[in-house]
Amino acid sequence: MISFLPLCCHPNPKKVLIVGGGDGGVAREVVKHPLVEEVHQVEIDDRVVELSKKYLPFMACGFDSPKLKLTIGDGFEYMKQREGEFDVIITDSSDPIGPAESLFQESYFALAKKALRPNGIICSQGGTFWIDMDHIKSTLDHCRKHFPVVGYGVASVPSYPTGQIGFFIASSNENTKLNEPAKTFTDEEIDEMKLRYYTTDIHKAAFTLPRYAAKKLY
Amino acid sequence: MISFLPLCCHPNPKKVLIVGGGDGGVAREVVKHPLVEEVHQVEIDDRVVELSKKYLPFMACGFDSPKLKLTIGDGFEYMKQREGEFDVIITDSSDPIGPAESLFQESYFALAKKALRPNGIICSQGGTFWIDMDHIKSTLDHCRKHFPVVGYGVASVPSYPTGQIGFFIASSNENTKLNEPAKTFTDEEIDEMKLRYYTTDIHKAAFTLPRYAAKKLY
Repeated sequence: MISFLPLCCHPNPKKVLIVGGGDGGVAREVVKHPLVEEVHQVEIDDRVVELSKKYLPFMACGFDSPKLKLTIGDGFEYMKQREGEFDVIITDSSDPIGPAESLFQESYFALAKKALRPNGIICSQGGTFWIDMDHIKSTLDHCRKHFPVVGYGVASVPSYPTGQIGFFIASSNENTKLNEPAKTFTDEEIDEMKLRYYTTDIHKAAFTLPRYAAKKLY
Repeated sequence: MISFLPLCCHPNPKKVLIVGGGDGGVAREVVKHPLVEEVHQVEIDDRVVELSKKYLPFMACGFDSPKLKLTIGDGFEYMKQREGEFDVIITDSSDPIGPAESLFQESYFALAKKALRPNGIICSQGGTFWIDMDHIKSTLDHCRKHFPVVGYGVASVPSYPTGQIGFFIASSNENTKLNEPAKTFTDEEIDEMKLRYYTTDIHKAAFTLPRYAAKKLY
């Protein structure tokens, strides 16, 4: 969901940047989208890529696509050198406490905004509404300073704490409606792409939050 | 969700039966619905009720409502003696393997159907689409033999395995659309009833399943 859904918020996501995502799973899903032509990925730790290729080949197969160009390096520095290049930027990081802390701060969203083409989309992992509400609220507030349209969605992931992963998503196009996909696919197309979770209906439903969470965030 | 959502599938849920639910949590939510006049609950184990009153007063407060009549006894036997009595029957049982097994078999749905008034609704807990797909499929098939409209929904519950609880829901009215509430409430009304999870949007979204699950079940 954190991979394919943000692409569907953009009418024509030709050029995509993945920050992090060293296991290859995000790349595996992103390259399935028929309008995606180029995927640039910058991962800070080559050892993650190496171990994923060895032990998680069903994830690392994402690196095999001819659409993908992998760079080992710092996502912050990488984005600083690129302005107005990407239609979609997906950040697949570890948790916001520890090494990946900088990827949830306001300066990161400012940088991502600059690296986007006009009407671009960004998406980052975003904890869970059961235990991380203060973090979600403050990250959304950071994001709102740079993007006119900001949302928070969830997907069910049984192996994550509380059984779900949330994600922040934002558009620099003020007319974007995040819960109405800009590009939809039929069930048959979904099956051809071998997507097992995503559907247009799941996309719409992902942004529906329990009352207590919706009240706090919007 | 397993408490309030089924009520909202019925335009006028005056008389409700709860089978099980000895902790009082389902009763606590059901009595909040303004159209509900009588709630009859039949719990097989009086010790569950007693311990809940002692250790889980925030759940057991459901037993305090003047709308509620609690009977200690066997839900199967209770329903056999009542035909055409209830608008909604909610079964809040333990898992389908073990003592509560009979509550997921075809004979149970046949009995529940008879205990309903015309155009009635039933709802039971239903495992999770991550690990219980065979059970979900077979239970839906049992249910379909007795009800023209049958659905499967999910709610996020972080303390349950895989972080979610599913539920079976069925209507004896062939025109019911389970994902379109027959009775809707405004956000203000939701807040007045002190519902922290349910909203009309959450109701609609609950029936949206990942592609692999929807393909197997529908």
